[in-house]
Amino acid sequence: MDVDQFRMLGHELVEWIAAYRERLEELPVMSRVEPGEVAAQLPAEPPQQGEGLGDIVADLERVVLPGITHWNHPGWFAYFPSNSDLASVLADLVASGLGPQGMSWQTSPAATEVEDVVMEWLRQMIGLPESFTGVIHDSASTATFTALLCARERTTGFGQNRGGLQAEEAPLVVYASDQAHSSIPKAALLAGFGAEHLRLVPTDDEHALRADLLEKAVAEDRAAGHRPCAVVAATGTTATTALDPVGRVADVAERHGLWLHVDAALAGTAMICPEFRWMWEGAERADSIVFNPHKWMGPGFDLSAYYVRDPEHLVRVMSTDPSYLRTAQDGLVRNLRDWGIPLGRRFRALKLWFVIREHGVQGLQARIRRDVANAQWLEEQVDAAGEWERLAPVPLQTVCLRHAPGALAGDETALDAHNLAVVDAVNRSGQSYLTSAVVKGVRMIRVSIGAERTERRHVEAVWQALCEAAAAAR
Amino acid sequence: MDVDQFRMLGHELVEWIAAYRERLEELPVMSRVEPGEVAAQLPAEPPQQGEGLGDIVADLERVVLPGITHWNHPGWFAYFPSNSDLASVLADLVASGLGPQGMSWQTSPAATEVEDVVMEWLRQMIGLPESFTGVIHDSASTATFTALLCARERTTGFGQNRGGLQAEEAPLVVYASDQAHSSIPKAALLAGFGAEHLRLVPTDDEHALRADLLEKAVAEDRAAGHRPCAVVAATGTTATTALDPVGRVADVAERHGLWLHVDAALAGTAMICPEFRWMWEGAERADSIVFNPHKWMGPGFDLSAYYVRDPEHLVRVMSTDPSYLRTAQDGLVRNLRDWGIPLGRRFRALKLWFVIREHGVQGLQARIRRDVANAQWLEEQVDAAGEWERLAPVPLQTVCLRHAPGALAGDETALDAHNLAVVDAVNRSGQSYLTSAVVKGVRMIRVSIGAERTERRHVEAVWQALCEAAAAAR
Repeated sequence: MDVDQFRMLGHELVEWIAAYRERLEELPVMSRVEPGEVAAQLPAEPPQQGEGLGDIVADLERVVLPGITHWNHPGWFAYFPSNSDLASVLADLVASGLGPQGMSWQTSPAATEVEDVVMEWLRQMIGLPESFTGVIHDSASTATFTALLCARERTTGFGQNRGGLQAEEAPLVVYASDQAHSSIPKAALLAGFGAEHLRLVPTDDEHALRADLLEKAVAEDRAAGHRPCAVVAATGTTATTALDPVGRVADVAERHGLWLHVDAALAGTAMICPEFRWMWEGAERADSIVFNPHKWMGPGFDLSAYYVRDPEHLVRVMSTDPSYLRTAQDGLVRNLRDWGIPLGRRFRALKLWFVIREHGVQGLQARIRRDVANAQWLEEQVDAAGEWERLAPVPLQTVCLRHAPGALAGDETALDAHNLAVVDAVNRSGQSYLTSAVVKGVRMIRVSIGAERTERRHVEAVWQALCEAAAAAR
Repeated sequence: MDVDQFRMLGHELVEWIAAYRERLEELPVMSRVEPGEVAAQLPAEPPQQGEGLGDIVADLERVVLPGITHWNHPGWFAYFPSNSDLASVLADLVASGLGPQGMSWQTSPAATEVEDVVMEWLRQMIGLPESFTGVIHDSASTATFTALLCARERTTGFGQNRGGLQAEEAPLVVYASDQAHSSIPKAALLAGFGAEHLRLVPTDDEHALRADLLEKAVAEDRAAGHRPCAVVAATGTTATTALDPVGRVADVAERHGLWLHVDAALAGTAMICPEFRWMWEGAERADSIVFNPHKWMGPGFDLSAYYVRDPEHLVRVMSTDPSYLRTAQDGLVRNLRDWGIPLGRRFRALKLWFVIREHGVQGLQARIRRDVANAQWLEEQVDAAGEWERLAPVPLQTVCLRHAPGALAGDETALDAHNLAVVDAVNRSGQSYLTSAVVKGVRMIRVSIGAERTERRHVEAVWQALCEAAAAAR
């Protein structure tokens, strides 16, 4: 595309995105297309001649937009909040426009050094000690996988440089809670530990890992000749934002030489507010921590922050040093290709730089406090309402609830169906979007608050919609 | 950031990027900053109050731009071509502006279905049979890692669901050539095979894997009770674009039940031209293939195309199915979270959609043919010039050469230093940027042609610069 076309279409798309964000509230949150409907509108074969992008805005409206589930909608209460602040959208535009590769310092020094600086800002912002160094990964899944690989190599004394995991005699074991995010079993399996060497430790009534049962499991494994290797503690589990007792998990980890990885994918952003830091007390003793600014802070996906206490260990696990990648500055700088799985790297640090500058620490704190207050308001409504049950504590921005009319008391199957019907009715309205989860056999409706544009009135509206849907579904 | 600010700054940044692309040729290709120079210009602490982005263009000019090594510069002959076509820049703008999460079909059906369609277009474009299904990964490193994990699980009959790799009796072995990209040893080590179970098979005089020695290595491993698991064949190695004999490697793989992964990271794009498909004849027999449209095609990093013959196997290795991710459409659609390592997914398919529409298949073919013809022109110059040696065949767009004046004949150390000095002089000029590599002990200068804006005159200029630098360095 030539530069003049870029100018023309670029301005048009800036206006289109602006208009999209302005009319978000009029759109149904959840896409209403049927499977195959979007694909059916596109040609089955690529165009032989270039057709230019003159019609692209029309195609975005006609083909793409109906197939978008609007994560930036103020009526978004599904999964987790994950928005691209418009400052982040512009940062991404700059990153794409400059188009550098950040694999080595020399392949674009600014890509590495802006990342150095903003990851250091972020460390200060969430109150982690100076002993932590950060790097941007795409997602918490990848960072957690990286953590378990590093744990594996620490326990085996760099077995990867010998016979690998397959040459180890006594099996290595990984621990997490039965509420751990799916990425943790996935990472344990991909890292080669095997399902039989993954212990999902039971949780208490508040769905937090029981450190006493962790200690017991580790002791049993040791007695059986296994090698306890790593434990993942969650600050804010996915289903209910439960808080594992990080400090007590750290005690166990230190006692038995386990790698401690803290998964604060959502909750990490809340640590910008000092009053929430009690939630992960002990995280400063972790070997690695991941949280996703792309959830709840503003930089768009993908921007996951991975902090480690021993960068040399990470680099030793991840580095390769072929001649075609060597540069004159190698001893003096960070080559971020050695800090994660992919070699190539986008200039993602710009997103964080733009968002932090735009809002400042206090602006970001205000947003977190607004969302937590909105969750507390909803918690109060649920607790005060008849026939509604709150199914988990609300330390953060997620309220887990269900409608339990007396007529269905004790009939879990009927309650499950009833609550699914309630969620479905709210989602079909288009005004709000909710997802549900099953925790210990109980179907819960999750109201996950914290989209950038979600104000109190939107939370009031979803609560009213839930109440109306519950009444209608009886 | 509010919508009006976005409009204002968005238009300003579109103009800034347009102007940047227009003046690229005036900028030194390789950044001239010293380590720490960019970081020193940024505050050590994050701003407490939001300061807005009013000054951002000034900061981009002052702080960021001097620290950019310009991959889109027409004088780019380093590493590999990797550009973001301006059509791709706009696609990324749309992806960020819409900001959907493509982890499941339902979380934004268009993100999945546009990917379905464009990956099918791309399959047709590179001439792969219908038996292949594609998915976008961030990088070839990640895709290759995924391939080796899939190979591991096929050989062990899904050992990950039992005791994992650490419970296997006979060790699994991975094969590649001694010219394989660093991501292959890295993936083998991370997947737990261990360095002792990675065989880097010697290559022939043209740096291609010797299938006879592969067969021999596999036979030896089998005789030793090992289990040959996977082989990676390269179409276009990183250092010299050598072509492993994919068909003969496929013979060995089929004979011994190895997973065949084809790494065509750079060269895959050339397969858009039918006349180049002989280079990877046999790829249609592979289990998995990766190539990077973000090299040499136009969509900006990160956009790696991963094709597999058995999607069900991939999904079985990668899938997790927690209740909070289940949707009503799960049986009917692709949930792309189960097709790779990360859970979250950007809407990257838009980049491919925009670029293919903008240029059409024929437009993309013309670019590849231009670049290959430019490389052939340079090959002829090198071959005709006195005192220059060409060190590898030129099937694609990379010319490997060195200056070997008679006075230094036989003195490899002096030749190495001399050629490094030549590269350094060219790079310091700012007009072009080259990187070097050491292949089998010989220092080579790599002229990797194919930046989007590189025309014949730029190749002529780098050749002249090389000749002048060589004369001056004697």
